[in-house]
Amino acid sequence: MNHSTSLPGKVYLIGAGPGAQDLMTLRGARLLAQAEVVLHDALVTNEMLELCPQAKKILVGKRCGQLSTAQAFINKQLVDHAQKYAVVVRLKGGDPMLFGRADEELRALEEAGIAVEVVPGITTALAAAAATRQPLTKRGVSRSVAFFTSSTAPGESEQTAVPDCDTLVQYMGGREAIATAQRLLAQGRAADTPVVVIENCSRPEQRIARLTLSQLALGLGDKQGPVLVMLGEAMAMRASQAQDTPAFTDFKVSNY
Amino acid sequence: MNHSTSLPGKVYLIGAGPGAQDLMTLRGARLLAQAEVVLHDALVTNEMLELCPQAKKILVGKRCGQLSTAQAFINKQLVDHAQKYAVVVRLKGGDPMLFGRADEELRALEEAGIAVEVVPGITTALAAAAATRQPLTKRGVSRSVAFFTSSTAPGESEQTAVPDCDTLVQYMGGREAIATAQRLLAQGRAADTPVVVIENCSRPEQRIARLTLSQLALGLGDKQGPVLVMLGEAMAMRASQAQDTPAFTDFKVSNY
Repeated sequence: MNHSTSLPGKVYLIGAGPGAQDLMTLRGARLLAQAEVVLHDALVTNEMLELCPQAKKILVGKRCGQLSTAQAFINKQLVDHAQKYAVVVRLKGGDPMLFGRADEELRALEEAGIAVEVVPGITTALAAAAATRQPLTKRGVSRSVAFFTSSTAPGESEQTAVPDCDTLVQYMGGREAIATAQRLLAQGRAADTPVVVIENCSRPEQRIARLTLSQLALGLGDKQGPVLVMLGEAMAMRASQAQDTPAFTDFKVSNY
Repeated sequence: MNHSTSLPGKVYLIGAGPGAQDLMTLRGARLLAQAEVVLHDALVTNEMLELCPQAKKILVGKRCGQLSTAQAFINKQLVDHAQKYAVVVRLKGGDPMLFGRADEELRALEEAGIAVEVVPGITTALAAAAATRQPLTKRGVSRSVAFFTSSTAPGESEQTAVPDCDTLVQYMGGREAIATAQRLLAQGRAADTPVVVIENCSRPEQRIARLTLSQLALGLGDKQGPVLVMLGEAMAMRASQAQDTPAFTDFKVSNY
C-alpha cells in the first residue's frame, strides 16, 4: 500500500543474523512480515527473505571484490522509499550496529526527518560460538573479548590493529589471517594458541576448522563465503568435547 | 512426558537476550514451546517464560548479592533432568557464550554423555546499541569493540583489565564504574569521552543516560537492574539524532 497522506513511513534497521532463517528475532520476523519494501545486503540469505514474501525486495549490498552500490546511493534509496511506503525494512547481515555502516544510514534518515528504529540481530561471533560449543569467555581464562575487523575506510591506516583482549574475533578475517597471526606472534601470543575458523556460519555449507596461531599464519586459502576467525585460550577444546567439528585439513590451508 | 526408554534427553542452552520477549530468536522460541523443563536465571524475565507455558520452570540463577545456587548444583540439576526428560532447556540471560558460565555447564553435560546444543541470544550490548541508536563501530572512528567484565573468579586478580579497543562495553558495570573510569583516565582517555549507560535494557523500566568519562568517574548511584556501560567516540551523539534519550540526571549520579 502506498501512503494516501504525505506522511513519511518508518524505517527499521534489522539485523538478519548470520544466515539461518530461525536465528532471526521474533521482533524482526514480525516486522519483515509487515514490510512493504526490504532493502537488503548480499549477505542476507534467500531463506531469510522468505520471511517477507509480500515485500518488494531490493538488493543494495556491498561485497568485497564484487559490484558495489555506493553508500550514498543506499542512503538515498532508504529516504526515497520511506517517503513512499509506511513500513520500510533495511535488512543487514549480522547485527546492524557492529561493522554495519549503521551510522551513515541513521544520519541520512534522521536528517531527512524520517523515523527509524533499530532491531538487533545475532552477530556472527555468537552464532559461531554456539555452533562450535566454544564459549567466548571462560572463568579464570578469558574475561574479555574483542570484535574487530581490518577493513579500512579511505584515509584509514592499512595497519591491522590487534586488540589486547583475552579472546579475539576477527570479522571478514579470511584475507587478513596471515597479517593478524603474524602480528599476534610478534606481540608474544603463543604459537599454539587455539584458533577456530568458521566459514558460512549457520548456513548449510558451514565449515569449521580448528588450528593453531602458527597454522593461521600460513593463511586460510581461498574462501568462498564470509569467514570469522576466533582465537585465544577460550577456544581450547574441552577434553569432554566430542570431535564434532571437521579437522582443519577440511580447509585448504595454504598461502593466500 | 517422561521417557519410556532409558535414553537421556537433549539439553538446549538458549540465550534469552536482554529481556524483551520478542528479542528471542525464532529457534529459541520453537524449542521453548517444546521444552518439558526450563532451568532459568534470575535475569530471565517473566514475559520470556510465557513462551513455555507447558514447561516445568526452575529458577537456578545466581545474582550478585542475592541468594545463589552454586554452579555445581546447577550442573547436577541439568544432568538429572536430562536423564528424565527428552527436551530440557537451560535459559540464560543474554547470550550463553558471553559471560554465561557456559563452559562449566557444557563440560558437565558432555562428561555425562548428554547431547547438548547451544542457541545464541541477543547480547545486551547489541540491544543497547539498537535502543540508543548508537552504533558500536563507525567508519573512520571505531573499528574494534571490547566486551568485558570485572567479575572475578576465586583466585583471579581484582584488577579491572580495561582493554584497548576503540569502543568499550562493560557488562555488569554499575558497581565498577568508578574504578573503570579512573583507570581509563589514567591511561589517557579524554575526560569528555562520551559514555552511554543503560539499565534494564529492553525492559519496560529501561533507563538510558548519556554522560562523559569524567562524570562516570563519579559513579552511577545505586542501580536496581543490570547496568551496561558503553564508551568511546562511537558513542558521540549525532547532530541529527533526536534527544530521544533521558538526560543523565535521570540517573542518580553519586559516589557509590
